[in-house]
Amino acid sequence: MSEEFDAVDVIRTKRDGGSLSADQIDWVVDAYTRGTVADEQMSALAMAIYLRGMEPEETARWTRAMIASGERLDFSPILGPRGKIATADKHSTGGVGDKITLPLAPLVAVYGVAVPQLSGRGLGHTGGTLDKLESIPGWQASLSNEDMMRILGSVGAVICAAGTGLAPADKKLYALRDVNGTVEAVPLIASSIMSKKIAEGTDSLVLDVKVGPGAFMKDEASARLLAQTMVDLGDDAGVRTTALLTDMSAPLGLTVGNAIEVEESVEVLAGGGPDDVVELTVALAREMLLASGIDEDPAEALADGRAMDVWKDMIRAQGGDPEAALPTARESHVLTAPQSGTLSRLDALAVGTASWRLGAGRTRKEDPVQAGAGVRLHAKPGDRVEAGQPLMTLLTDTPERFDRALKTLDGGFEISSSGPVDVARPLILDRLTAE
Amino acid sequence: MSEEFDAVDVIRTKRDGGSLSADQIDWVVDAYTRGTVADEQMSALAMAIYLRGMEPEETARWTRAMIASGERLDFSPILGPRGKIATADKHSTGGVGDKITLPLAPLVAVYGVAVPQLSGRGLGHTGGTLDKLESIPGWQASLSNEDMMRILGSVGAVICAAGTGLAPADKKLYALRDVNGTVEAVPLIASSIMSKKIAEGTDSLVLDVKVGPGAFMKDEASARLLAQTMVDLGDDAGVRTTALLTDMSAPLGLTVGNAIEVEESVEVLAGGGPDDVVELTVALAREMLLASGIDEDPAEALADGRAMDVWKDMIRAQGGDPEAALPTARESHVLTAPQSGTLSRLDALAVGTASWRLGAGRTRKEDPVQAGAGVRLHAKPGDRVEAGQPLMTLLTDTPERFDRALKTLDGGFEISSSGPVDVARPLILDRLTAE
Repeated sequence: MSEEFDAVDVIRTKRDGGSLSADQIDWVVDAYTRGTVADEQMSALAMAIYLRGMEPEETARWTRAMIASGERLDFSPILGPRGKIATADKHSTGGVGDKITLPLAPLVAVYGVAVPQLSGRGLGHTGGTLDKLESIPGWQASLSNEDMMRILGSVGAVICAAGTGLAPADKKLYALRDVNGTVEAVPLIASSIMSKKIAEGTDSLVLDVKVGPGAFMKDEASARLLAQTMVDLGDDAGVRTTALLTDMSAPLGLTVGNAIEVEESVEVLAGGGPDDVVELTVALAREMLLASGIDEDPAEALADGRAMDVWKDMIRAQGGDPEAALPTARESHVLTAPQSGTLSRLDALAVGTASWRLGAGRTRKEDPVQAGAGVRLHAKPGDRVEAGQPLMTLLTDTPERFDRALKTLDGGFEISSSGPVDVARPLILDRLTAE
Repeated sequence: MSEEFDAVDVIRTKRDGGSLSADQIDWVVDAYTRGTVADEQMSALAMAIYLRGMEPEETARWTRAMIASGERLDFSPILGPRGKIATADKHSTGGVGDKITLPLAPLVAVYGVAVPQLSGRGLGHTGGTLDKLESIPGWQASLSNEDMMRILGSVGAVICAAGTGLAPADKKLYALRDVNGTVEAVPLIASSIMSKKIAEGTDSLVLDVKVGPGAFMKDEASARLLAQTMVDLGDDAGVRTTALLTDMSAPLGLTVGNAIEVEESVEVLAGGGPDDVVELTVALAREMLLASGIDEDPAEALADGRAMDVWKDMIRAQGGDPEAALPTARESHVLTAPQSGTLSRLDALAVGTASWRLGAGRTRKEDPVQAGAGVRLHAKPGDRVEAGQPLMTLLTDTPERFDRALKTLDGGFEISSSGPVDVARPLILDRLTAE
């Protein structure tokens, strides 16, 4: 960093609606990482970015500066004529019942593509992939870079905690945005996600950008903007990136929680499972294979057990026992249909929040989660239900939590008695590629 | 404070263009003062206020919350049939060569009105009243509340440092705004100034809102908005408040610095001094007297020496010797006119910055200032000058500063050779009262 800038000048530039220069961005991201620019200064800048926006070139440079703040991974040792064909990664912006990573990673690995899934834990109403896998007895989320590379080379798929070395600037900024009301700034979300994925060094990336009441992006226009911004950032950085815009009005599948989502993922790997989970898993797998130059139908590897074999190897490689019984909740409460009719709405946000309050999620980063807690759905939108029939089962180890969970679900679903209701909405709304 | 709010919710409300409720404002100002709301949260809120603005009711409530964060003064012990008629205060938004407080306070006190001037030090290109007075041998800026009240009761005028008890929320927020690029937010400037003046408990207040290149507000529309906002805040709080909008394109008077501004103030108190300094002093005094129910011409008390008598008493009451010689700078450098013609422009910002760089001002709060440093002007806009004639004299104890000061003055004035130039602009542009 040869040039020095004044933090107030940089803030004022954005405050007044100007574009930050490449040098200004490099300086401010680096100085913030080093602590020369204070939290209260970055906070004002983040709010100015939220309200004034960033040009695509600014977002690209900001992403590059965040990548430059940390280490980069290099998967080349496991690639080549005698190794894996390529690496492919997936990122979801977070939904309710979104266990797709679990069947997806082993499924794609079947075809010789290495899938390094550096994942996170849940915060708030969306669950975390690592929290779900940790319900498997013995399974360990943390791996050294060396172990991760070794498993990726042998098994082909690995789902583990991201190390602290990737994009430290993002870690600091993410924690700041969590308390200063700028979480929803599209350029900052996009650069946060993409800086980690690009630093990770994957060959291709498929983004599952959720839209709807249960998603971070409630409306399609915002989701589309975020998806396109990320696709363009990936493309600029030489990562083949596509995005699927997918519906998140109702939960995915019939389980929302930790162990019960693992159970449903195993059903999918065994060739069964709910239609929507299978559809999205196969669609995302197809994107990852295509990006790796492979034109095959991944549904076959679910049907013939090859994906299940990789799953078991993957779980064992991280100390887990894929045959062990999964933990179950100590207490359950059945919520029944108050009337007969068609389930016309089942709000993903309400179900996700109920599951969180039952103990499947956490409020603060350091909170533990309950492996068995969650919500098991017995009907999905469009299904016919009779009065008194179970709609969902609430699960927890701590029954005092039922009350708050039930309050959350109050108004979270609707049963229409006026004949069949058309709730058909495609799960996959659109596919975006670099412009 | 009975209700609790979430800082992120408050920030989001303003971020999204909404109005903060009275309870939200009371909570966030109090919680920030107590440290429950962090600097990085208030910083994002300040930026959102800068970009989204505040409704008049929000600004009024914000001001009230800042007043509530600290103590309030009570001047009633010195008022009444056997004491002073009323208290009157003046605030200037800061200009170059703005020494008006010095002759003004004793002038108004002549008429039985008590003038408590709680003043500040200079930062940047505008000087500080206390810095100027501290060039008088022996004079002390810091007084206890008891001493201030005693001097106010006997002498009638006191100029001293504001105690730390008034509006502590403002002190904290002011320091934050200084580093986060929100200094120019009109609702925050207005509430910062007015919270201190209202907490001080004055009966009336006249505001000198400067507009022009040497002022904080460069354009008349912004200055007018700030002036009206402050007048309305004062009026709402029961303080009779008027504002004069005054020109700050050229420096006030012929001196910019510390001791040399005291010297010029004493000339005004002796019945002389530059026309513009006299005009503004008399106009502001007239406002303060009218607000106290007195309809007299204050120019008389400058002419007959009564104001000078109060000045001497006031300086002595704070340990100063009004007859002592003032410090002078060790080094001087004369800047001459490069050509003959009419001085058509003399930029207040350039002269103020030059004086600051010569040592009369400070960059950081803890820096000392030089008593003798500054700029003495030998011509004002509209004056005829001949090539080689002295335009101004630069004064400092540290001659290595001449270079930077001269660079600052490069382009800071213009001499027009095409005959007489009309530079006439009224000094007092407008007078504003509560709407």
